Amino acid sequence: MIPESHPRYRSLVTREQMAEAARSGVVALEGLTAHGRGEAFDYLLGEKTSASAAEAERVAAALLKTARHPVISVNGNTAALCAQAIADLQKASGAIVEVNLFHRTEERVAAITRILEDAGCQVLNGPVERFISLDHDRGLCHVNGMAAADLILVPLEDGDRAEALVSMGKKVIAIDLNPLSRTAKTATLPIIDEVTRAVPAITSAFKTMNQEEAEKLTKNPDGKRYLQDAIMTIRSRLDDLLD
Amino acid sequence: MIPESHPRYRSLVTREQMAEAARSGVVALEGLTAHGRGEAFDYLLGEKTSASAAEAERVAAALLKTARHPVISVNGNTAALCAQAIADLQKASGAIVEVNLFHRTEERVAAITRILEDAGCQVLNGPVERFISLDHDRGLCHVNGMAAADLILVPLEDGDRAEALVSMGKKVIAIDLNPLSRTAKTATLPIIDEVTRAVPAITSAFKTMNQEEAEKLTKNPDGKRYLQDAIMTIRSRLDDLLD
Repeated sequence: MIPESHPRYRSLVTREQMAEAARSGVVALEGLTAHGRGEAFDYLLGEKTSASAAEAERVAAALLKTARHPVISVNGNTAALCAQAIADLQKASGAIVEVNLFHRTEERVAAITRILEDAGCQVLNGPVERFISLDHDRGLCHVNGMAAADLILVPLEDGDRAEALVSMGKKVIAIDLNPLSRTAKTATLPIIDEVTRAVPAITSAFKTMNQEEAEKLTKNPDGKRYLQDAIMTIRSRLDDLLD
Repeated sequence: MIPESHPRYRSLVTREQMAEAARSGVVALEGLTAHGRGEAFDYLLGEKTSASAAEAERVAAALLKTARHPVISVNGNTAALCAQAIADLQKASGAIVEVNLFHRTEERVAAITRILEDAGCQVLNGPVERFISLDHDRGLCHVNGMAAADLILVPLEDGDRAEALVSMGKKVIAIDLNPLSRTAKTATLPIIDEVTRAVPAITSAFKTMNQEEAEKLTKNPDGKRYLQDAIMTIRSRLDDLLD
């Protein structure tokens, strides 16, 4: 048992929760390693939402509010970490929730769908086709889901899909703790924050935002600035640690 | 298949190798997450051995050469990543190799012992007792191994054992990619480098070092400086990435 007094209690409990989700097949083994990479960056970011990330979360809410056909793409790590928060965001925004996996098997899709449904999500089901031009299973999606989407929220990703989606003319919001990742660099809007902090923040911003503000916020999202801000945050934290 | 041309080919192949080792029970699920944290820090360090880490590796060789009863403590991640390099270091230095696990079961000890023996290690066996005052299984060790050691090389660690060993008056060499970790901060000598680069470098330094040089190098190891150097390396790499 991890004592609640431990300074990194939440991170350690989450780590055990992820190992448990890997045992039950929801999280892929490669997903555990990806989670570890995220942990390292979150530690460097101070394990809290920066002012810059909070601003990006407001812009994300605005993009969801002004989208024609928004889709939330969920993988094993996202389902294990924050199924309830995804359900809340879906309820607020009306976005479609679609399961999309690199290590795709029918069993994993079913297990992840069940977790999401238990949390109150409506999950898109039915046949998938290779609408995204990728030679692995992240290319598979639903005709009424990502294929038709103008905006896709990718809560956690480790790969090249963001690039493929952007080149299809879609807007991509990525939640990624690594400001140097290809996903973060390619996304229309990168949110450099931990997913269980970011998703509720987007939902909360969505609920209090009117259409006029949303349209203003989506004018010119400057993705690069959020990356630079995150790198600056890490740098200044390292400076403090050097003392 | 990962193409060899991929800029991060080695890191990606290692990630798959670790997932495979988790499937066979050698690496704990929590070990995969720890590996991911290491990956993130190695990425920030440029995935190469810094001049400062190379110097620490020479000091490690000197500490091994001047030790009375040196022990190499091996866990699942270390065995999966570099059993052969551990065998080579043992052959060169005559150090004792002992298996020490947080998630300890007889099956895992046996599987890790087998991997090490297949690589040519002589692994200490027999009964273990709680010679280290920790309330988890990293406290278990052999009377002729860590209990009697004056110097312990801990290639990878995620926890509080380094602290317990140092408070028992033992010298600890830690190989750890995170310069901010408790292990790295507590060790007599922290080597901030990736284990498959660090262990062969220690072996190579050991082979070419005479006793006189070894005694000079072990006079006043300044652990804190190696941590600061690593933090500076990460900082300057972030500066480059900001451009």
